[in-house]
Amino acid sequence: MSWIDDPAFTPDGPFGPQTLPYGVLPAGVAVRVGDSALPLRGLALGERLEPLVAGNSLDALLAAGRPAWSELRARLVEVVDATAAPRGAALVGLDGAVLPFTVADYVDFYSSRHHAENVGRIFRPDGDPLLPNWTHLPVGYHGRAGTVVVSGTPVVRPHGQRRSSSGPVFGPSGRLDIEAEVGFVCGGPVASRLTPSRAADHVFGVALVNDWSARDIQAWEYQPLGPFLGKSFATSVSAWITPLEAFAVARVSPPPLGNDVLPYLREERSWGLDIAIGVEWNGTVVSRPPFREMSWTFAQQLAHLSVNGATVRPGDLIASGTVSGPARDERGSFLELSWGGAEPVRVGDGERTFLEDGDTVRLTATAPGEGGSVVGLAEVVGTVAPADEGRGVGQT
Amino acid sequence: MSWIDDPAFTPDGPFGPQTLPYGVLPAGVAVRVGDSALPLRGLALGERLEPLVAGNSLDALLAAGRPAWSELRARLVEVVDATAAPRGAALVGLDGAVLPFTVADYVDFYSSRHHAENVGRIFRPDGDPLLPNWTHLPVGYHGRAGTVVVSGTPVVRPHGQRRSSSGPVFGPSGRLDIEAEVGFVCGGPVASRLTPSRAADHVFGVALVNDWSARDIQAWEYQPLGPFLGKSFATSVSAWITPLEAFAVARVSPPPLGNDVLPYLREERSWGLDIAIGVEWNGTVVSRPPFREMSWTFAQQLAHLSVNGATVRPGDLIASGTVSGPARDERGSFLELSWGGAEPVRVGDGERTFLEDGDTVRLTATAPGEGGSVVGLAEVVGTVAPADEGRGVGQT
Repeated sequence: MSWIDDPAFTPDGPFGPQTLPYGVLPAGVAVRVGDSALPLRGLALGERLEPLVAGNSLDALLAAGRPAWSELRARLVEVVDATAAPRGAALVGLDGAVLPFTVADYVDFYSSRHHAENVGRIFRPDGDPLLPNWTHLPVGYHGRAGTVVVSGTPVVRPHGQRRSSSGPVFGPSGRLDIEAEVGFVCGGPVASRLTPSRAADHVFGVALVNDWSARDIQAWEYQPLGPFLGKSFATSVSAWITPLEAFAVARVSPPPLGNDVLPYLREERSWGLDIAIGVEWNGTVVSRPPFREMSWTFAQQLAHLSVNGATVRPGDLIASGTVSGPARDERGSFLELSWGGAEPVRVGDGERTFLEDGDTVRLTATAPGEGGSVVGLAEVVGTVAPADEGRGVGQT
Repeated sequence: MSWIDDPAFTPDGPFGPQTLPYGVLPAGVAVRVGDSALPLRGLALGERLEPLVAGNSLDALLAAGRPAWSELRARLVEVVDATAAPRGAALVGLDGAVLPFTVADYVDFYSSRHHAENVGRIFRPDGDPLLPNWTHLPVGYHGRAGTVVVSGTPVVRPHGQRRSSSGPVFGPSGRLDIEAEVGFVCGGPVASRLTPSRAADHVFGVALVNDWSARDIQAWEYQPLGPFLGKSFATSVSAWITPLEAFAVARVSPPPLGNDVLPYLREERSWGLDIAIGVEWNGTVVSRPPFREMSWTFAQQLAHLSVNGATVRPGDLIASGTVSGPARDERGSFLELSWGGAEPVRVGDGERTFLEDGDTVRLTATAPGEGGSVVGLAEVVGTVAPADEGRGVGQT
């Protein structure tokens, strides 16, 4: 019996010994055990591993690469399995977690066919919902790395331009939305032109991502160069990064694309993952997006984004794009759930289309683990703060 | 008479005492004087300034903010004006310059009306060349920070998908192009919701940018989320960053937009800049793009990109977008110069539409300085290396 006395540290729970996600607390780099955390600084991990977890971020660990990641995980399994607390081991609470790594480049994909079709129908009602390139390449774009924030950070309603019948107007967004996504945190040596089979060696772990979106700002600005201020005000990620190794039994094949893909995108064994997401809006579960429905995997995304010679660096964050399944209650954005605002969503005793000030959105997710266990992704939660009216409205 | 014996260190030349751009050499942070450089490490600059230039990048200096930038520039004017070399001062050559700062977020705008209209006519011949949002906001998008490289770095022809009559095909780009741009390097305190009048306090200096572009990859991928792999393989910047203070007399008003802009984008005094760019293709000057023709200024771009609460950080690189003037020989891309490849350009004894392997492109630029002097932006040069055929073509 493990020395860890946290009752949530069980294989039936999302943060048992099968998961062991990494984060950064005031006490430094830590691994989550149930609803507690074990700081790694001060543990006897050996001279190779100790420097990787000695700082106040996961950056050194991300840079170290797959062999070090595997060695550390194996060592931590021993530590948490011990019957008595090893020297230097003491549990702490989860409070005070910070963004656990320095985000290098942030790329957001668009890899759910259901999401792409829904958005296409809403934004371009007269056109084909799916553009012709979509089934041939994982469509994506670069987002703003500097505004990636840790779960729990309030999200201030953004100002911006939006269209009106009398021309563009300026003010707080009236169509503030979420995008429920899965994010892949890159590490290992800087590399380019990755094949899908090599991609996993460049992915340290997995987090949940909420890519907050202001639909009115986005709709006016996005042509021809894509989303910009409609997305760049905030992107929330989990405080705990679940190692990719924890997903070994969660691998699935994605739904067929309906056409062959070019050789550089072909996977020998697919990196689709059976992750079940829950979207809570003020405590009401409004959607359960199934990540297994995504058409493009992170391995294909990494192969695509690096095939032109672009490098993948430690700290690159690769988000999947909004996860939406075929059913209405599997949609990963409120734009889709409310069909562009036309069909309000039942939230508690009331109804919602887009986010109101004070609303809280919580994303959670699990995947199947070894031996019937449950692997968790740490929650992403955020509460909408009112737009700051005191600044920025044109004063010089 | 200055102790600096470099004959190019003259107010008539681009890198005289009126310019004093910063870069990073093997000897550390340095200021360019003519065709030589003065390493700053070891100079008696005082305890406040010395730590800002002690490292191997400009990062500490960028973070320090406008008062420190002004103080250092004033101190360096004294140093270069001295009749005898101050203690610790010794000139070195320009070889070995590295990317002088850590790129945080890289944003590329689209602020030349002539460029936007030309591209619109070429890519969307059936539509209005200028989309309706263009005159109301500075259209922009995020690029890849991790593939920003210093002038002189070879540019390997990228692989990618492109459209063909039989569906998408994969291979080296056949339409490799340049974009001649001006880049603004940000610094000072992390800030958001900047007004145009505050923007200059968050811009350390100015560089030339060549945003290499693969037009065939871009044309197939860019809808609906904008450019991605068609741009992300390489973006070249000058090795030397000219301080914004050097452009005090180069300020001009941009051409009118034809409509009012919203208050948050209004400038009291415009930050348009009279920078004259030259584009050399294998030694032939093929274009002279006039930066004074840009419709949106960096102050408006910074106000726009931060109005939604997005932060501006030291190391953010804000590129103007391709600089094109109204005349044919003022276009800043080969896409425009060759009108989509239909009208070859005379280069030396031959003709070109897009770049061939081995081609070299050099961008240079000057602006008017105090007292009739010439302020230089350091060149951006790059030579096209053949696509690497050995990797990435689908092997797993």
